[in-house]
Amino acid sequence: MSNENQVAVIAGVGPGLGASLCRTLTGAGYRVAGLARGTAYGEQLASEINAAGGRFLPLACDLTDARALDESITRIERELGPVSVYVHHASQLVMNPFLEIAPDEFESLWRITFLAAVLGAQRVLPNMVKQQHGALLFTGATAALRGGARFAAFASAKFALRGLAQSLAREFGPQGVHVAHVVIDGIIWTERTRGFPGVTEDKCLQPDAIAQTYLQLIQQDPSAWTQELDLRPSVEKF
Amino acid sequence: MSNENQVAVIAGVGPGLGASLCRTLTGAGYRVAGLARGTAYGEQLASEINAAGGRFLPLACDLTDARALDESITRIERELGPVSVYVHHASQLVMNPFLEIAPDEFESLWRITFLAAVLGAQRVLPNMVKQQHGALLFTGATAALRGGARFAAFASAKFALRGLAQSLAREFGPQGVHVAHVVIDGIIWTERTRGFPGVTEDKCLQPDAIAQTYLQLIQQDPSAWTQELDLRPSVEKF
Amino acid sequence: MSNENQVAVIAGVGPGLGASLCRTLTGAGYRVAGLARGTAYGEQLASEINAAGGRFLPLACDLTDARALDESITRIERELGPVSVYVHHASQLVMNPFLEIAPDEFESLWRITFLAAVLGAQRVLPNMVKQQHGALLFTGATAALRGGARFAAFASAKFALRGLAQSLAREFGPQGVHVAHVVIDGIIWTERTRGFPGVTEDKCLQPDAIAQTYLQLIQQDPSAWTQELDLRPSVEKF
Amino acid sequence: MSNENQVAVIAGVGPGLGASLCRTLTGAGYRVAGLARGTAYGEQLASEINAAGGRFLPLACDLTDARALDESITRIERELGPVSVYVHHASQLVMNPFLEIAPDEFESLWRITFLAAVLGAQRVLPNMVKQQHGALLFTGATAALRGGARFAAFASAKFALRGLAQSLAREFGPQGVHVAHVVIDGIIWTERTRGFPGVTEDKCLQPDAIAQTYLQLIQQDPSAWTQELDLRPSVEKF
Repeated sequence: MSNENQVAVIAGVGPGLGASLCRTLTGAGYRVAGLARGTAYGEQLASEINAAGGRFLPLACDLTDARALDESITRIERELGPVSVYVHHASQLVMNPFLEIAPDEFESLWRITFLAAVLGAQRVLPNMVKQQHGALLFTGATAALRGGARFAAFASAKFALRGLAQSLAREFGPQGVHVAHVVIDGIIWTERTRGFPGVTEDKCLQPDAIAQTYLQLIQQDPSAWTQELDLRPSVEKF
Repeated sequence: MSNENQVAVIAGVGPGLGASLCRTLTGAGYRVAGLARGTAYGEQLASEINAAGGRFLPLACDLTDARALDESITRIERELGPVSVYVHHASQLVMNPFLEIAPDEFESLWRITFLAAVLGAQRVLPNMVKQQHGALLFTGATAALRGGARFAAFASAKFALRGLAQSLAREFGPQGVHVAHVVIDGIIWTERTRGFPGVTEDKCLQPDAIAQTYLQLIQQDPSAWTQELDLRPSVEKF
Repeated sequence: MSNENQVAVIAGVGPGLGASLCRTLTGAGYRVAGLARGTAYGEQLASEINAAGGRFLPLACDLTDARALDESITRIERELGPVSVYVHHASQLVMNPFLEIAPDEFESLWRITFLAAVLGAQRVLPNMVKQQHGALLFTGATAALRGGARFAAFASAKFALRGLAQSLAREFGPQGVHVAHVVIDGIIWTERTRGFPGVTEDKCLQPDAIAQTYLQLIQQDPSAWTQELDLRPSVEKF
Repeated sequence: MSNENQVAVIAGVGPGLGASLCRTLTGAGYRVAGLARGTAYGEQLASEINAAGGRFLPLACDLTDARALDESITRIERELGPVSVYVHHASQLVMNPFLEIAPDEFESLWRITFLAAVLGAQRVLPNMVKQQHGALLFTGATAALRGGARFAAFASAKFALRGLAQSLAREFGPQGVHVAHVVIDGIIWTERTRGFPGVTEDKCLQPDAIAQTYLQLIQQDPSAWTQELDLRPSVEKF
């Protein structure tokens, strides 16, 4: 199938991996929609990408709201076509002593990290199954494999997402949908993280390099699909 | 510390593992409180255990309601003493095609399997830390390690619980609290499961045998604590 | 089955976990044979244990030599009875940059850590299978789960042992033989390690506490067997 | 660095994945040497690849013999240039009841699956470290993660290889060498396997598709390296 006919949704777009995914996929010929809470950044990215000949549609959407997400996907289908790639990488880092994390924080983190992935997958899977073609990618973290001290909320949400990815891979792989979970182990070099104490570029993951691997996952031949891989800087201790 | 001075709470008590835990721990000298949605079964269990010389207090409690749980623990502390053992094993098996599981079901399963564990742990940990002594046990399942097809909701909730257990072990182990996660791989032989098609006693886990291992975990020397173990029948394929 | 009728072999006995296993199992009524390269320590341990009313037989044996091991087991069977418990915990820590580990070192480490376990298991399993009763325990390490830098030889040998344990558990569990792998994560407090720089008792695993868990594993009910558990000091970072 | 300047060694070349790796890497501009027990197949492959404008050198070599391997690499360095990519994928499937696998079989399987990887890595790493550039790829299997019944020999050798890969990744990643372990889960469609009972093309991994992922691993940016990934057919149960 030619990429020109294909539509990718990036759920969670900001300067960083989200933007790199949008650039990389449009660069490879995909029509891409980017969902984010607001559209300020998305509009800016759209100017850049569309000027370069790509096709990028930014939409404001609360990913944890099933109805809002449904409306966004419906609009994407109408404007760009049926969705064959869906990347969920929305989350939020919470790092705090367990006794200082309110139950509400556990819940809101679970909603954006996990439930939003369920909502997106449930919205796009029926058509992918019908086409016997599609890719669902989930952005994980080291915390998806190892619950560290002070990571009770973040790790448990990322663990849940990994369990979901495995379950969907087993259920939908034989139906033609490639479900992959990417374990990002390290800090991504972005506008935001470059201000962090002790963070230097040579110790970080480049978002464009990560996006390249996502693209390769999406384009893998169905005879040899990857369900899970890790990504980390060469210098990262692990 | 003598067991006679110690209080254990079993969060989730019905005929099966919950009852075996109550019998085993009271038999070993613990004062035990059992929390469940209703008290019918608990009262019956209390008659049996208290007649045998044990001390068992059944309480009705919605474990997903922070205030209700707080009140229950407060009452337990008043009637039995400070809690030094807390076992969370409430959950509910959901096995369905992904597209037939409503978001609400994901949420309610997450509340009882995971959030209730957070609420219980946050309630009892401060005192355990103060005493530098305590044990938190979480009942997991194979689905905590492997997300099978049709297990999207159950596996993701159990994955989350496992991530929590690891995080708490790393944070509270050095503070004297033993946090362990038990992976139960197979069907427990209970009143309920013996009616299942194809289920025979020789292929099931005996709840008393499981409870024995929980007791041993609780009594491990702090120099050699187990964070995770699995339990399955000798004949189980895995 | 009463413990009095049972014979346990500890393959790898020195002051430390080996000695604790011998003391703990004889204390629980097992007749125990201890295999080691020499008998000096074993004789001393025998005096102590036999004086206390236990039955302990120390034998010198090169565990990597199939014929020598066969002869030792034959003598044990003649003097103590058929073997129903076999614990392999011989190994040797090698920690060196990869390019400074000779292929011969990889091989000798593999022989003592892994091949000796194969030889022991092949010698005792036929009778265990015939009796539909027995326990094979393997002592693992963190390095069985995670290959750290400078641990290429040790980790690969311990990984191999873990793979063996899983395979034997799946093959022989349904035949009545309990195969368990114990991941020891930390330094055991022994005569030897107490001389190590920076090692203090409060940060170490007590060998008697470890041995207690081995005994519990051996005595688990076949309806709820553990295939793998970890053990570490409460204060250990992991 | 341009691929034209780079030399890749495929340790273990036969019709199947080995051949696909040779074709894919020469197609991407690498000069490739292929090591195998004999050269009959290699010569045939060389005719094909060299006719297509690639540069492929087949060499007969016993990979478990340090001296023979050293001589082969020396010749490759002389004829093609310094080695910057080394793929170890030699192994042999052994599937038998544990009591029917001779200790010698454990050993020979360990030599070809594991020790040969050590010998190759020790031979090529010093120069890679000097160049701060290189890739070591190891072909694993499901049996590297799960020791199944009747897989005692194969699984333990593959477990060992995985432990090695992790250890080398941690030691040599910061020195510029990318070490990756590929878990192949399923049957590769080759001349040999297409004769197996019940094996059909649609259920197998295509060797060219696998090779494509190896090439992508080799070309990953050092800011986002994969240490491990799995590959399986979309229809594979796992």
